[in-house]
Amino acid sequence: MAEFMTETKQRSPATGERRGPAGDAGAGPFDGQEAAALLERTRALVDPELRAAVESLPGSMRRIALYHFGWEHADGTPATGNAGKAIRPALVLAAAAALGGPRARKAAVRAAVAVELVHNFTLLHDDVMDRDTSRRHRPTAWTVFGDADAILAGDALQALALRLLAEDPHPASGAAAVRLADCVMELCAGQHTDTAMEHRAPDEVTLDEVLAMAEAKTGALLGCACALGALYAGAGAQEVAALDGFGRQAGLAFQLIDDVIGIWGDPRRTGKPAGADLAVRKKSLPVVAALASGTPAAAELAALYGKPYVKGEPGDGAEIARTALAVEQAGGRDWAQAEAADRMARAMQELARAVPVPEAAGGLLALAEFVTRRSS
Amino acid sequence: MAEFMTETKQRSPATGERRGPAGDAGAGPFDGQEAAALLERTRALVDPELRAAVESLPGSMRRIALYHFGWEHADGTPATGNAGKAIRPALVLAAAAALGGPRARKAAVRAAVAVELVHNFTLLHDDVMDRDTSRRHRPTAWTVFGDADAILAGDALQALALRLLAEDPHPASGAAAVRLADCVMELCAGQHTDTAMEHRAPDEVTLDEVLAMAEAKTGALLGCACALGALYAGAGAQEVAALDGFGRQAGLAFQLIDDVIGIWGDPRRTGKPAGADLAVRKKSLPVVAALASGTPAAAELAALYGKPYVKGEPGDGAEIARTALAVEQAGGRDWAQAEAADRMARAMQELARAVPVPEAAGGLLALAEFVTRRSS
Repeated sequence: MAEFMTETKQRSPATGERRGPAGDAGAGPFDGQEAAALLERTRALVDPELRAAVESLPGSMRRIALYHFGWEHADGTPATGNAGKAIRPALVLAAAAALGGPRARKAAVRAAVAVELVHNFTLLHDDVMDRDTSRRHRPTAWTVFGDADAILAGDALQALALRLLAEDPHPASGAAAVRLADCVMELCAGQHTDTAMEHRAPDEVTLDEVLAMAEAKTGALLGCACALGALYAGAGAQEVAALDGFGRQAGLAFQLIDDVIGIWGDPRRTGKPAGADLAVRKKSLPVVAALASGTPAAAELAALYGKPYVKGEPGDGAEIARTALAVEQAGGRDWAQAEAADRMARAMQELARAVPVPEAAGGLLALAEFVTRRSS
Repeated sequence: MAEFMTETKQRSPATGERRGPAGDAGAGPFDGQEAAALLERTRALVDPELRAAVESLPGSMRRIALYHFGWEHADGTPATGNAGKAIRPALVLAAAAALGGPRARKAAVRAAVAVELVHNFTLLHDDVMDRDTSRRHRPTAWTVFGDADAILAGDALQALALRLLAEDPHPASGAAAVRLADCVMELCAGQHTDTAMEHRAPDEVTLDEVLAMAEAKTGALLGCACALGALYAGAGAQEVAALDGFGRQAGLAFQLIDDVIGIWGDPRRTGKPAGADLAVRKKSLPVVAALASGTPAAAELAALYGKPYVKGEPGDGAEIARTALAVEQAGGRDWAQAEAADRMARAMQELARAVPVPEAAGGLLALAEFVTRRSS
């Protein structure tokens, strides 16, 4: 769940030579400006309600949440804030607008806030489990307030999210709450699989498992965001399912691209050392695909990954370069790029099914391009 | 949140000389048999739906939850099960029946399941935070599956609880979901206060703070259970508030009695060493009341509590006896018993306000007597 947002990785926005999931060097139909405008507009619509919801928490929980969202420093003084890029609320609003116009977009603001609260609840908990010390360029909540308070603040944010939907008189709010709760359970299962995989040997992990995990951890909430927007637009079951599929496939495309960047990304752009994911022996999608290839390079990769990573120890540059080459020679890089392109194509099919009018689908398309492009 | 259920403490049912919160030696209007029958009937009504709900979780989450509820062993083989005494679901059903008869009781089963799921979500998380290793006579989930899985299973149970209400077509389900979510936030704040108090000096903690913490941690969910039952019976705002007050006051009475037992309880009945709460320097209600008394015994108590407790070290019998005597001489024991009687009186007032017909109130009364009596 922590994998999706680029800001969580402290990577810079995309300016690289690979601009789309298919590796096309030119700009797509959107240059990112439409997405940026959508995100800005989303923040303007969502932030006041999000902030008001967080302010309604009991004092101790409010304090931790305000810190987590970047609205307060650890000592309780106001901070300028960096509450993330609001991709998920933007998807809710864009989906509502695509199927129901401006009125539906306005009605869906509360659902957008609920999705953002769920996202942040999972970030608080994932950081505890993964012992991640930094998020959005600040120390994670558990490092400041302790594990217990970070867990409790996450629990409270989940309750707050479902409360917002429960008190919403909109006719879609009940169905939206069911869907959001189901999504939480899927996110939990995905995070479980991710943490469990860390303790397994690389050759025991199958590609299907890693794809399923990525869909649960990354795709599920993007799909849910789109589905909630569709529900608030009064869409039928087929359109809701298609928009859910659109978000899921776009999320998988993002994860594939993100995994490629984690191995071959330019450290000057990613802000992380070259091959950072290889140094920590991450069982990312290109690596698992490479290991499953049955090639001589796969055997070499398995041997390299067999050496345990010692946490905190810097990676050996030459060894990491050899590992990256083995993944590439075993076909992991090509597979990931082709798979990302395939997933984006599937996302477009789902989008066309739900929103046949291209003009109406523009916002969702821009956001999908944005999430898969900005991390490259 | 973990404080309420007697089975969580591994204490035996009540057979002691103090039988009621006021310390009356004789039996009250109920001898516990009515409560036992109510609890058994509740389990028969609630367990099939509770089990079906848990079975609907994604595989990995289901496994942890089935273990936690006592329905499976750690290896996934079936277990005979000890899912707790079902006090909270019994309160939901009794409140519904008191205000709406058998039909309302039947309609409220799903709400009873939701309350029980929330209770168990908090148990899973509290055990992680408090590093408790035993619950219902079995190793806690985090000791078996690790912290991450116990946190995730708790998250999933919260989502499942709110999902059950979101999909319930009953007209009260939305209001019930709002109330249950609010209760979760209060429980979180109460657990935060409890864990934060552990790191504060005994004389920095005020009686009002400890009472507020006990209300949030123990009273809130009992009150919420009663309120949900009232909502499902179609009760008005005043009756719902009164039943919430009834549950809260009864919960506080329970906590006061439980704290008295934690100091002066008979080890043969409690299954814990004498003065167990004193050995771990617990800032329980009688202790904090004693410390605030301004008596010479309070000063002695403060000095004794000033010596840090070393986890895992057995308490010094003579010192614990001296500490217990100091609490008693400073008036902590008398205060707690009088306060418990006062809280039960308030609970009865709230009950009479919500349910003026004594016959209809019988079930709730029996349960209130049961929770305050069985731990003595």
